[in-house]
Amino acid sequence: MKRVYNFSAGPAVLPEAVLKEAADEMLDFAGSGMSVMEMSHRSKIYDEIIKEAESNLRRLAGIPAEYKVLFLQGGANLQFAMVPMNLMKNKKAAYIITGEWAKKAWQEGQIYGEAVVVASSADDNFSYIPDCQDLAIPADADYLHYCENNTIYGTKFWQMPNGKGKPLVVDMSSCFLSEPLDITKYGLIYAGAQKNFGPAGVVTVIIREDLIPEVCLPGTPTMMRYKTHADAASLYNTPPAYSIYICGKVFTWLLAQGGLGAMKEKNEKKAGVIYNYLDKSTLFKGNVRRSDRSLMNVCFGSGNTALDERFVNEAKAAGFDNLKGYRTVGGMRASIYNAMPIAGVEKLVDFMEGFEKKIKG
Amino acid sequence: MKRVYNFSAGPAVLPEAVLKEAADEMLDFAGSGMSVMEMSHRSKIYDEIIKEAESNLRRLAGIPAEYKVLFLQGGANLQFAMVPMNLMKNKKAAYIITGEWAKKAWQEGQIYGEAVVVASSADDNFSYIPDCQDLAIPADADYLHYCENNTIYGTKFWQMPNGKGKPLVVDMSSCFLSEPLDITKYGLIYAGAQKNFGPAGVVTVIIREDLIPEVCLPGTPTMMRYKTHADAASLYNTPPAYSIYICGKVFTWLLAQGGLGAMKEKNEKKAGVIYNYLDKSTLFKGNVRRSDRSLMNVCFGSGNTALDERFVNEAKAAGFDNLKGYRTVGGMRASIYNAMPIAGVEKLVDFMEGFEKKIKG
Repeated sequence: MKRVYNFSAGPAVLPEAVLKEAADEMLDFAGSGMSVMEMSHRSKIYDEIIKEAESNLRRLAGIPAEYKVLFLQGGANLQFAMVPMNLMKNKKAAYIITGEWAKKAWQEGQIYGEAVVVASSADDNFSYIPDCQDLAIPADADYLHYCENNTIYGTKFWQMPNGKGKPLVVDMSSCFLSEPLDITKYGLIYAGAQKNFGPAGVVTVIIREDLIPEVCLPGTPTMMRYKTHADAASLYNTPPAYSIYICGKVFTWLLAQGGLGAMKEKNEKKAGVIYNYLDKSTLFKGNVRRSDRSLMNVCFGSGNTALDERFVNEAKAAGFDNLKGYRTVGGMRASIYNAMPIAGVEKLVDFMEGFEKKIKG
Repeated sequence: MKRVYNFSAGPAVLPEAVLKEAADEMLDFAGSGMSVMEMSHRSKIYDEIIKEAESNLRRLAGIPAEYKVLFLQGGANLQFAMVPMNLMKNKKAAYIITGEWAKKAWQEGQIYGEAVVVASSADDNFSYIPDCQDLAIPADADYLHYCENNTIYGTKFWQMPNGKGKPLVVDMSSCFLSEPLDITKYGLIYAGAQKNFGPAGVVTVIIREDLIPEVCLPGTPTMMRYKTHADAASLYNTPPAYSIYICGKVFTWLLAQGGLGAMKEKNEKKAGVIYNYLDKSTLFKGNVRRSDRSLMNVCFGSGNTALDERFVNEAKAAGFDNLKGYRTVGGMRASIYNAMPIAGVEKLVDFMEGFEKKIKG
């Protein structure tokens, strides 16, 4: 069996221990005589799986009782519409634009009302996070939406925007569970699982109960009302049952690793190894403002397209996969989510140093 | 390793060969050094997986080029809204009500326009299929919607409704790929994978290209436009990648079994074993009109709630799981989808005969 170091931005590397357990349980989960894929979502045994996943997630992220945890389908992309359909009562909301996904969320918001851009870093290809401490948020805005970690560009909000009392609605797809967080500061958090805590096909929504409306915008499908899923504890219809089971295993793994505090330490260490090298390299440099660097997605390049391509190919041959940067950015991107071991990052930097020596002599 | 005979209505039994392959490939798919769960959906290797799944499905079901095949999220439940949002141009459509899911589709249709009931079997607890050869379909109806196989009640349309020229939109969740079909007779077919061909979390939509609208009803989310997914070959956003990979394996397995003709033969044989027994039993009897019996979901009971419960419990202890009927029906339901082996059905009938002898003496 071969395993590479997989730097994919998502779907992304999962803990090997989780995959091994899943393989072992594939034909017979816990003596049930069936795979989790084959289980009725109304069965007692599956109910335990989904309830345990939720309770471990609550413990891990310190989610208070007044927040609902939902496991939904359609990814962050469907949340771009579900958020305004549920929350845009005044048909107005504020959006911060710090990358492609933040922009897509804003564009989708415009279908449902006035989606006001209150800050943007589009002027410099999203290479920084704008100052968001004194934004001109309309008084009747229903919420302030932003994307905490920008997967494509490699930036992160290290200071929370000042929402001036409006509920903060945050896309945390690429940083959720990578460090401790204070849930009570947010109105709604959503995160696709396929970056930091599971396979594609499930998006986790954490929503303060009082924000769940009885009535949504006209034309909202039943499946897109948060209330539908909150009232049914994510079992209104058949959920993405197997994906939730894998997420549950990742939650258990994260708890065993020491929880989010330990993950933060590990993630800072991993990112530090690459950024420290980039800061002294004469071949490669990081793409974004130092103070806004992401711990999850490290974007860098040599400034020479052909050389970048050669690097990506040679790295792949050496067992470091999926290092190519996003097409609107170019260069390289090393996504180093929770499940990427420190050894993977250290070996990558060894490889980069070797490559640099070969080029620069 | 223990395996039971799993009669769950969905998520349901999968071919053991598929599960074994999935387990073997869990940590390293085809020498890639990663699980399919960990693969970028934009990678070459995943592209081959999804393209092969689609082409095998096309071959299996004889899907002509002028039909698009989409792998989407949200299950049949989200299709209940997606169909009218895309197709209800005249804000009017006809619905046939033959069970809970058909009814839910109709209720959802009412959010978007006039959803006219043109036939129903609600008067006798959905125990039969109404005559649908001369329905009063409004002249300006955009489509006729029905559910071909009614999972909860155990009935099936053996004669196609006469749509009087309107596109037929059909929920085939619990019978798709159980027998050959003529795709050209339908406008749109949708089917959740978790009954007959895969795990939960993916719904397959087959839609005639000319029915895909440029413009949907106002307020339709980008993710709920068929065009969004058709233009991107189901890769507009991160798809439920692992679930599609498992579906692909089931398609390959179905082809190896001899395709849908062979499946129909096997499914008729399996259903025959149970129905023949029911027809001569003095303890159990089938719930529905004989001519409308489903090959996939066999609903039956003794007429005595306590005895039914005892049967379900003793059957479970003997290795026949998930035989309890749906709460609105009671009694028992044996779902015997493609992956249920003939031996499972034969042994179940042996068990039922033994139970009958014990009770009746």
